[in-house]
Amino acid sequence: MKITFIQTGGTIDKDYPRTTKGYAFEISEPAVKRILKKLNPAFDFEIISALKKDSLEITNQDRQKIYDICEELENDKIIITHGTDTMIETAEKLSRIKGKTIIITGAMRPERFSDSDAPINVGAAIGAVNALDKGVYIAMHGLVLRWNRVTRNMTTGQFILK
Amino acid sequence: MKITFIQTGGTIDKDYPRTTKGYAFEISEPAVKRILKKLNPAFDFEIISALKKDSLEITNQDRQKIYDICEELENDKIIITHGTDTMIETAEKLSRIKGKTIIITGAMRPERFSDSDAPINVGAAIGAVNALDKGVYIAMHGLVLRWNRVTRNMTTGQFILK
Amino acid sequence: MKITFIQTGGTIDKDYPRTTKGYAFEISEPAVKRILKKLNPAFDFEIISALKKDSLEITNQDRQKIYDICEELENDKIIITHGTDTMIETAEKLSRIKGKTIIITGAMRPERFSDSDAPINVGAAIGAVNALDKGVYIAMHGLVLRWNRVTRNMTTGQFILK
Amino acid sequence: MKITFIQTGGTIDKDYPRTTKGYAFEISEPAVKRILKKLNPAFDFEIISALKKDSLEITNQDRQKIYDICEELENDKIIITHGTDTMIETAEKLSRIKGKTIIITGAMRPERFSDSDAPINVGAAIGAVNALDKGVYIAMHGLVLRWNRVTRNMTTGQFILK
Repeated sequence: MKITFIQTGGTIDKDYPRTTKGYAFEISEPAVKRILKKLNPAFDFEIISALKKDSLEITNQDRQKIYDICEELENDKIIITHGTDTMIETAEKLSRIKGKTIIITGAMRPERFSDSDAPINVGAAIGAVNALDKGVYIAMHGLVLRWNRVTRNMTTGQFILK
Repeated sequence: MKITFIQTGGTIDKDYPRTTKGYAFEISEPAVKRILKKLNPAFDFEIISALKKDSLEITNQDRQKIYDICEELENDKIIITHGTDTMIETAEKLSRIKGKTIIITGAMRPERFSDSDAPINVGAAIGAVNALDKGVYIAMHGLVLRWNRVTRNMTTGQFILK
Repeated sequence: MKITFIQTGGTIDKDYPRTTKGYAFEISEPAVKRILKKLNPAFDFEIISALKKDSLEITNQDRQKIYDICEELENDKIIITHGTDTMIETAEKLSRIKGKTIIITGAMRPERFSDSDAPINVGAAIGAVNALDKGVYIAMHGLVLRWNRVTRNMTTGQFILK
Repeated sequence: MKITFIQTGGTIDKDYPRTTKGYAFEISEPAVKRILKKLNPAFDFEIISALKKDSLEITNQDRQKIYDICEELENDKIIITHGTDTMIETAEKLSRIKGKTIIITGAMRPERFSDSDAPINVGAAIGAVNALDKGVYIAMHGLVLRWNRVTRNMTTGQFILK
């Protein structure tokens, strides 16, 4: 098994700058790198950094870039880390890609946090990517669902079955 | 989706006693509890503590106990946390159970460790349990494989495809 | 020994909201609470929340509030957690208080981060507060220095001897 | 300021082997190394590994070795990490050394644990070492006390004022 991980940014990758006047979080290197180091994976992988954006800032052009990367990959098992606010929009864009299993995941709390959900979410995507049929899925809160079956509870922030 | 988690012990649950002369690690409350708290799951679950043993100490009688619990459950999605040394033996015992998806997982480093693989492994099991056919699987190092397809590399400790 | 901890905000207390459209951090409950839970302290303590502000936003009025709290305390061992950008300004303000040992500390990375310096900095303040003469000190990067001996290297962000 | 850290072993340095049949912990590389990496210290330091033993296994010969290292050091600020069970015995042995500030510290839970007290204890020793008079001290649970003023509550494991 080989998995291609694609970084687009979002909460999962938010880090804290080491300088002065550091007010905000910043999107840094792919959290997936640190997660895979802990896992010691028995599968092959590559990590591609496509974007480093909060998902509210992802433009149509950015989505086209993600689309093009997925489309051109030879590998058919893809996990995309993404901000939670526009996961479904990106999933819809990618839904025209045929012959690949694409899972979009992310985190409610940055992977840098000791109580982050990131390792569990990325784990869920890894565990599912080999078992699922081709298509585009969202993996959050322990559910891995086809993108068009997912809706978001805007009070709790949870991704649930439509 | 409802998942039944069964604790049997093993490295994943090893903790460190707070008393004096505390030389060894001890198997404590299910690590799954802490992992699910971080995940904020969008599925129902229950946690059953069957055993608190290092897997080298699991007897035939213990395995029968795990078998009986799985057999009697109404729920058909089961994740068992287990020591790595005899995962395959327990999987073989459970392989006679029909109509259920059972995934055995665990960790190379205790969940209490900040660099543990436990959240990723449990995540992989959660992500796969809904997607897989009925049967008994082992989820370690990012692979979720049918128990009779798995062997262990005794140098690296990794569970790999036979 | 009794220590009074005073929260004013800053990086040390930055947390990440669990809602949607959560772009930024938030100053949450005192990180000192979580640090002391890990320590299991053999001294008495109290925690007072004075402010929940990034230190660039602390006004003269806010500093007066911190001053008044310190002045009115019966206890003479005080540790203040504070954003790093204006630690020295607050220290100067407090320097007119007599008969108390006041240590200002904080963190370069939020206590929520698994690689935070917060527990070490707060530990340094705790370890020093009993040993130091009365006065106002800054404890960062392992140094605990009188406030008027400290300057900040604006490239590295380190607090060093003037 | 320069601090010499001396590793002797104990809970603070307990790690978990990555091999099969790994039942027990192992004393591994100095936890102080990882703690100082998080701190980004503004002081000079060196780390000496003297022993890698649980403190119940430290012999008179081992204590002599620790004594000799401390005695021969030019530096007069020394922090020793040590198992909790025989900290006081080692402190007594070192009490004949003149002209140096020696602080013995350790942890109730391994530094590898996400809820360890190790970073706070080492922080307390760092914060105190510059402020204290010459002599031998024990730093645990937030107290930094002269070794002959310390006793241990064998129920709670806490080091307290005699």
